[in-house]
Amino acid sequence: MASVVSDFEKVIIGIDPGTNVMGYGILGVNGKKPSMIALGVIKLSKFEDHYMRLHRIFERVLGLVEQYLPDEMAIEAPFYGKNVQSMLKLGRAQGVAMAAALHRDIPITEYAPLKIKMAITGNGGASKEQVAEMLRRILDIPKDKMPDLLDATDALAAALCHYYESTRPHGGISTCKSWKEFISMHPDRLKSLGDK
Amino acid sequence: MASVVSDFEKVIIGIDPGTNVMGYGILGVNGKKPSMIALGVIKLSKFEDHYMRLHRIFERVLGLVEQYLPDEMAIEAPFYGKNVQSMLKLGRAQGVAMAAALHRDIPITEYAPLKIKMAITGNGGASKEQVAEMLRRILDIPKDKMPDLLDATDALAAALCHYYESTRPHGGISTCKSWKEFISMHPDRLKSLGDK
Repeated sequence: MASVVSDFEKVIIGIDPGTNVMGYGILGVNGKKPSMIALGVIKLSKFEDHYMRLHRIFERVLGLVEQYLPDEMAIEAPFYGKNVQSMLKLGRAQGVAMAAALHRDIPITEYAPLKIKMAITGNGGASKEQVAEMLRRILDIPKDKMPDLLDATDALAAALCHYYESTRPHGGISTCKSWKEFISMHPDRLKSLGDK
Repeated sequence: MASVVSDFEKVIIGIDPGTNVMGYGILGVNGKKPSMIALGVIKLSKFEDHYMRLHRIFERVLGLVEQYLPDEMAIEAPFYGKNVQSMLKLGRAQGVAMAAALHRDIPITEYAPLKIKMAITGNGGASKEQVAEMLRRILDIPKDKMPDLLDATDALAAALCHYYESTRPHGGISTCKSWKEFISMHPDRLKSLGDK
């Protein structure tokens, strides 16, 4: 896998942390062309013990960091939750994933789910399926090669959102006030929809 | 410091995680005698950046784990907080501290603040000062040698609480219904108060 990584100028790891399933997506960038390197999920529900889950998250994320040598981490981070209990658990899951990146001095940026959906589809209320389909088109993945892993596509979407955010010259996605403005700012993504 | 650690049959690291200050206490046990090996705080308020704070927590706790080679970690963990925002931040701080222990396969046990105070002083509503003074007496620390670090004494109290919990034959601290019952179950701690 290391030989694949060396072909890219920049590698971004996207993480969608959860206490039952953690999704990850690895995005490679060459010039202005982003592409998918890897996509996967870390299944945690098989471990009853809370610490076993945290341990697994840390070791797997550290493993991904060592395998794909990402330059940056993008993390999907909801800022509101049902209750303090679920937020404490989510915070711990985020914390151990972040620790793996920080341990290797990889800078982290977090994005709210709405912002990620907006960046990828232009619609903050898009479904997981819509995000996955848009990702497939933007990243030029043939339909039969697109993994059916909706928990992981959100993570890849976080990585792509981070790529857009880090390359946009000024203003940007979050400041779009209308579809018209979004389309005028992102003609490449409109074209990508029209092509297929 | 490694030579000090080798004198103990068991070493417990206690952690009181916070996003502004993180306290730690290292407890050594020989036979039935617990004693303080180290006590300290990790000051985080000097870092404005949230990730810098998490990074510092992870690296410092990992450093303590590698220096003192603890067998177990005890962590003070409130289960309720003011709001979901503060619980998410606390969860992250706990998560990175836990990651450092899990990375070295050290088992973690968490204790609610009330339980720790109850275990050390017999009073769930004890002040930080009362916990510190009781710790000083139990661990036989001369008054002039006791560090004035109330954020750290809570962490040492978590470690001592864990030692009591892991050695009690049955029932225990949390089931005490009265002072009388507590005193009859912990004559050693009553004696320790009487001695000074």
